Amino acid sequence: MLTRTSSQSLTAQLADRLAERIRNRLLLPGARLPSVRECARQQGVSPYTVVAAYDQLLALGLVEARRQRGFFVRDSGRDPARDPAQPPGDPLQVSAMSMVTQMMASRTPADASSLIRSMFHRPSDKPQPGMGVFPPDWLDSSFMPTAVRRMTSTAMLQELSLQYGEPAGDAALRRSLSQKLVGINVPAAPDQIVTTIGATHALDIVSRTMLRAGDPVMVEEPGWALEFARLEALGMRILPVPRRADGPDLDVIAQYCALHSPKLFVSVSVLHNPTGYSLSPNSAHRVLKLANEHDFHIVEDDTYSHLAPEHATRLSALDGLQRTIYVSGFAKILAPNWRIGFLAASPALKERLLETKLLATLTSPALFERALSWCIDQGQLRRHSERVRIRLEGARARAAKLVLAHGCTFASEPAGLFGWVDTGVDTDVLTQRMLDQGYLLAPGSLFHARRPPTTLMRINFASSQDASFWKVFARTRDEL
Amino acid sequence: MLTRTSSQSLTAQLADRLAERIRNRLLLPGARLPSVRECARQQGVSPYTVVAAYDQLLALGLVEARRQRGFFVRDSGRDPARDPAQPPGDPLQVSAMSMVTQMMASRTPADASSLIRSMFHRPSDKPQPGMGVFPPDWLDSSFMPTAVRRMTSTAMLQELSLQYGEPAGDAALRRSLSQKLVGINVPAAPDQIVTTIGATHALDIVSRTMLRAGDPVMVEEPGWALEFARLEALGMRILPVPRRADGPDLDVIAQYCALHSPKLFVSVSVLHNPTGYSLSPNSAHRVLKLANEHDFHIVEDDTYSHLAPEHATRLSALDGLQRTIYVSGFAKILAPNWRIGFLAASPALKERLLETKLLATLTSPALFERALSWCIDQGQLRRHSERVRIRLEGARARAAKLVLAHGCTFASEPAGLFGWVDTGVDTDVLTQRMLDQGYLLAPGSLFHARRPPTTLMRINFASSQDASFWKVFARTRDEL
Repeated sequence: MLTRTSSQSLTAQLADRLAERIRNRLLLPGARLPSVRECARQQGVSPYTVVAAYDQLLALGLVEARRQRGFFVRDSGRDPARDPAQPPGDPLQVSAMSMVTQMMASRTPADASSLIRSMFHRPSDKPQPGMGVFPPDWLDSSFMPTAVRRMTSTAMLQELSLQYGEPAGDAALRRSLSQKLVGINVPAAPDQIVTTIGATHALDIVSRTMLRAGDPVMVEEPGWALEFARLEALGMRILPVPRRADGPDLDVIAQYCALHSPKLFVSVSVLHNPTGYSLSPNSAHRVLKLANEHDFHIVEDDTYSHLAPEHATRLSALDGLQRTIYVSGFAKILAPNWRIGFLAASPALKERLLETKLLATLTSPALFERALSWCIDQGQLRRHSERVRIRLEGARARAAKLVLAHGCTFASEPAGLFGWVDTGVDTDVLTQRMLDQGYLLAPGSLFHARRPPTTLMRINFASSQDASFWKVFARTRDEL
Repeated sequence: MLTRTSSQSLTAQLADRLAERIRNRLLLPGARLPSVRECARQQGVSPYTVVAAYDQLLALGLVEARRQRGFFVRDSGRDPARDPAQPPGDPLQVSAMSMVTQMMASRTPADASSLIRSMFHRPSDKPQPGMGVFPPDWLDSSFMPTAVRRMTSTAMLQELSLQYGEPAGDAALRRSLSQKLVGINVPAAPDQIVTTIGATHALDIVSRTMLRAGDPVMVEEPGWALEFARLEALGMRILPVPRRADGPDLDVIAQYCALHSPKLFVSVSVLHNPTGYSLSPNSAHRVLKLANEHDFHIVEDDTYSHLAPEHATRLSALDGLQRTIYVSGFAKILAPNWRIGFLAASPALKERLLETKLLATLTSPALFERALSWCIDQGQLRRHSERVRIRLEGARARAAKLVLAHGCTFASEPAGLFGWVDTGVDTDVLTQRMLDQGYLLAPGSLFHARRPPTTLMRINFASSQDASFWKVFARTRDEL
């Protein structure tokens, strides 16, 4: 919030705030700034202050003035003609665009990764319902530092640092992961496993290995923006498959297969992001049947594995890693910055996936891999996950009450880390207004391939239990 | 070597050795095994032993027998129709092929990454002249463990582990790198820098950001196989630019520009791999002039920066990071497995490169980045590099004498880490024979886009001072 007691002038505060938002891509190139009058009203300052702040942004080269039209965020050098993420003009997109507010008017699919970047900038120290990970204090544990320090004897550090290491990843970790996968009936020998720089990297390796530019690929929708954005950047044709409570829409898959012969389907089967849905056994069976009939592979993103109910159904377990590639990681449960993920696949496919890893990064840091192996083998990770699950149940119950008490509804039954919440208003607009007040939301548009405006948003149950957030939220929404 | 005193039978030893070589892709899918008689002669065993060993490989599913033709390594599931690295048939390739020995007869560009993988498997504990990094004892230091341990207090570990971290990389490291670049006149502010999973990842990010499948890209030849293989896997059209002592062949660049309008040129300007050449100031100036005239960017791979003579000429310094993207890393001088590299670019281009990093891996592990920052700020890295450079000078002088004493010549003036050595025989064949004796070579074919057989090989001066290697080498060569 702008404050009159600050050592900075109101003008400087406002200019700084807008400059930071432009630099962090929370205001996108081409976006129009609010009119002077509107901004003055929103921020509770005089029009003079706004004009002075806009002048500062002009001087910084961050915005440009267009005659009769107002101030626009400058495109800092993006060359759309060279940008692989830029699709040809699309009438559907244009018609959706007309519904979008002026501030977001420049939004095109090319901006997806910019929007995602905003998710990495906490606008304040307040609880952030839009974040995709647990708050740090949820992951705080005594065993994590112990595990790392075990790997820092001089001899161990030299072993783990002074050579490139195994391209497939630390052998001890691959053994631990193989054992762990037995618990969910996914049959993967250690040499069917490749460690990666987080689950994101694993999904990237799979798409680079199995697809060529222009290939069609089926992805669940809603789904996480990063997956859409990466596939777009690689030049793939995205075929969105509606996600239902029990699994993907099988009729749509069958139609795509008939029309486009896609080679890959990307699915979050358990505790799907953002809906929290988990795949039913019958749906799993039918998806695999379609995969066999139409000869496509499935990459099963099991990122939320650690929070999953026991006996959750995985495609990779039913299929035995024939047509499936299993992907998971540890950012959601242990240490986001360790960047450890992995994939498991049939022996033949694993060789091809490993080659892609080698071309992209050679190897991956073994110290964290060895430390994680210790956490798994000692049972620390299992006990920690259990504690987090129990704590999350309580948080979910409390947050769900707050959601309903503030006039929102759930678009899907609350489960796992995320709630999929209907606010009744355009959440793109709401997101901008809440940022002014130091809160990051995850608007529903982030979870669709074409990013149309929606009234939905994703909340993180672990960081949505704060009554003061909901008070600000309800007031801001009611002012729209 | 096979040994009669081993607890394993000769058959089992031979089968194990061949199986390992197939699994590590030192024998490639489709390759024909030597005839039973030939193999018996090479290994000094009876034909019966060879037949029994081949039978074991057959039972393991690693090879297949083709009637009247012999035993061939099975293709473990690669589907060439789906393999982006597989180019259309090429008559040049076929005519080069006829010169290749039977054992390597299946070689096609698709196998490049397999060949690279072999570089990560030390066939024995002997010094390995084919390796691309310093032997671990060269990198052994007391400050590296100290630096890591400084980052392992519980509070620090939590700070560096429990959130995703900065997408651009640890801010402390980016400040240290910015300072370090001042020393070589490359003007990069901390927010023009993005850290990566090694220099390989930086090069991958640049090519994914600036090129689309099918785009032409100029790459120096000879050059490192991984770069050719990655660009091929991304579906790019490689335009090889002959590398001369003072820089790339400018006439060839001008011709490519006229014919193909390439958007990117990949260059190792200082201590080029494998030749050791460094760019002259005049050549640098002319390359940049061509880049301006023909509107292409240059990614300058300065991986060997830490070994470079003072005042070496960098394109990025002359150009001020307008048309150049600077890439370097720390695998060659500090800790290969920390996987720290970085890129520096103009502010606008950096934003696009950062988005590609985010899509590929989100963030990178900050603990090692912070530790490296400490090593740089304390001057430890500079002093260590200086010690390594001095030690390398001695090693280079000794190894050069051994090269000449064993009937080889240098194809380029010895400099830096690598020697580019003419052996007088086909080094693909020589590589197989030397592997039988526990030595890994880097055959010249690895450094060409089309991998024709050559009589050249790259040696690592730090691991080529062993007289016993040269004795085995000369005997094996003379037997060909």
